Amino acid sequence: MIQRLSQNPLIQPSDVRPSRPDFEVIGAFNAGVARIGDEVILLLRVAERLKERDPDWVTAPIWNTRTGEVDLFRARRDDEALDLEDERVFRYRGNFYLSSLSHLRVARSSDGIQFSLEDQPALFPACNTESFGLEDPRITQMGKDYWITYKAVSEHGITTALAQTCDFREFTRHGVIFCPENLDVVIFPKTFDGKYVAWTRPVGRHIGLPTIWVARSPDLLHWGDHEPVLAPRPGMWDAARVGSSAVPFLTAQGWLEIYHGADVNHRYCVGLALIDAEDPTKILARSEVPVMQPEAPYELSGFFGNVVFPCGVDLRPDNTLTLYYGAADETTCGASTSVNELLASLSTS
Amino acid sequence: MIQRLSQNPLIQPSDVRPSRPDFEVIGAFNAGVARIGDEVILLLRVAERLKERDPDWVTAPIWNTRTGEVDLFRARRDDEALDLEDERVFRYRGNFYLSSLSHLRVARSSDGIQFSLEDQPALFPACNTESFGLEDPRITQMGKDYWITYKAVSEHGITTALAQTCDFREFTRHGVIFCPENLDVVIFPKTFDGKYVAWTRPVGRHIGLPTIWVARSPDLLHWGDHEPVLAPRPGMWDAARVGSSAVPFLTAQGWLEIYHGADVNHRYCVGLALIDAEDPTKILARSEVPVMQPEAPYELSGFFGNVVFPCGVDLRPDNTLTLYYGAADETTCGASTSVNELLASLSTS
Repeated sequence: MIQRLSQNPLIQPSDVRPSRPDFEVIGAFNAGVARIGDEVILLLRVAERLKERDPDWVTAPIWNTRTGEVDLFRARRDDEALDLEDERVFRYRGNFYLSSLSHLRVARSSDGIQFSLEDQPALFPACNTESFGLEDPRITQMGKDYWITYKAVSEHGITTALAQTCDFREFTRHGVIFCPENLDVVIFPKTFDGKYVAWTRPVGRHIGLPTIWVARSPDLLHWGDHEPVLAPRPGMWDAARVGSSAVPFLTAQGWLEIYHGADVNHRYCVGLALIDAEDPTKILARSEVPVMQPEAPYELSGFFGNVVFPCGVDLRPDNTLTLYYGAADETTCGASTSVNELLASLSTS
Repeated sequence: MIQRLSQNPLIQPSDVRPSRPDFEVIGAFNAGVARIGDEVILLLRVAERLKERDPDWVTAPIWNTRTGEVDLFRARRDDEALDLEDERVFRYRGNFYLSSLSHLRVARSSDGIQFSLEDQPALFPACNTESFGLEDPRITQMGKDYWITYKAVSEHGITTALAQTCDFREFTRHGVIFCPENLDVVIFPKTFDGKYVAWTRPVGRHIGLPTIWVARSPDLLHWGDHEPVLAPRPGMWDAARVGSSAVPFLTAQGWLEIYHGADVNHRYCVGLALIDAEDPTKILARSEVPVMQPEAPYELSGFFGNVVFPCGVDLRPDNTLTLYYGAADETTCGASTSVNELLASLSTS
């Protein structure tokens, strides 16, 4: 039903020029997707770290709010105050650090397969809520405007910020629209009863599974009227957590949301939620089994293996689409399918 | 500087009529404060549990979304799947439960000391984000309207909801304004550059200490432009977490926020933040030592001892004020002070 592109991975870390000469790119993944005319735009998450690293030390690149430069926090691997969770994160004296710093980078393509990458970051950390990086953008087009939600991460927490562009050359930032902890935010491309609607993924320290919530806004900048809308399902492929992946798109049967779920082993898979055309809180159907799971070598292993993680689709007028996804937190891949095939999977599952 | 009232505790659980005959009230505390004419209004958090309890079992009263009744979740104390954190909360099979269910109740007084309590709840759980209860209200008066922020707690997480009243008899609910996890929300009683401003206390699962953030709104219902504003201070009395207590009030030197902080031993104390009159993100001064800490017997022990937790003040025209606070998560107490004394404590600390 979903065919991986034979050219996968479409973009690899080695395709991306580092933001400075002493850095190496270790991930080019989790891209938001937009179309301007004949061009497919990917807004990639580019993860970087120091190229020359002492094997006895772990390092975290952190954007410095005062200087505007990237500093390196270092801790000895044999330091008892160090708690190395996995390759992505570590804790030191109770504080949380990321082993890489991500920014957002534009790539353009006329065929949706061969992408040319810009040399410079499009959006780089620029304030104290972005000092650990910008991650996992989603792009909603309304008229000429493209609204970009992205994870803004810092020592203060994981938030979602909003930026706006018409051309992916100039960007206007609108600050943090969802305070900690909130990520995987997708904005529907139309209003409901005069309000914009987003699906968000808050999760608190004490109570509650990582669940998708709905929020409403008069202006895209201020959000309220939050309600839980799609929860993990015990014992199923999305038992441990769920989050929106692609911006929902309207089909003859309702809005189709391509979302991700993880089980208790942190295996990330992709499924579908069909949403009432008029009511973005009403789920009509949901994948009983994943429509996509880590299978290809570039999905099973990489910086963080066993992950397929889409952040957007290129939907064409003939109702075929390319799903762009991050593989193993390292590369950008594509897969082909059609709206009919996706909808059919829901009625038979 | 702050004198406890000799009549403390002003309100005890035994003063409150349970919401149903088989329940007992175990807490009447953490009250929001308002004034209507000559009357001081407290909106109390009333915590209840089943009166007759089998000592071999723990129980959690949960409001049932479908039936509108309160159910009792039970687990055997010797069940290996049970994790009894403290008297307030337990976990069972990884899920979080509260040992009591709270609602909000009105109490009225002409002297601010002797209160008469209403027989019935003012605000009781009414939707799926309130199934574990309503807690810790704060009240902001603007014109004739009183805006009530309160913790709405459920299996979906700890959120902050908004209600509105003119008389504390009829209430209009406005839903969840801050999604999980967010609590200790106070709304400033004036606008800044045309926007309402709140101090909020989000905390995420992964990164960040429990820190006060600021948020802005055009309409009190939708919020954005979040920024961290007041963080815990390592090694000090507010090292582990901070949260707003009373709604800020304007003094000659700026807004005065009476906030709470806890250290790593969960000892809750009270301190002050002086905030620029024109800029609700600019902290001018902050208490180096608490202005109030658990000392009285009714503060040192109770349902959860070592806690003083104000949620509001009654500020009089002569700049004297009564601080109403929850003691040991059980009773409502009062303390007298004046704006001058509070401000003086900041300049000497």
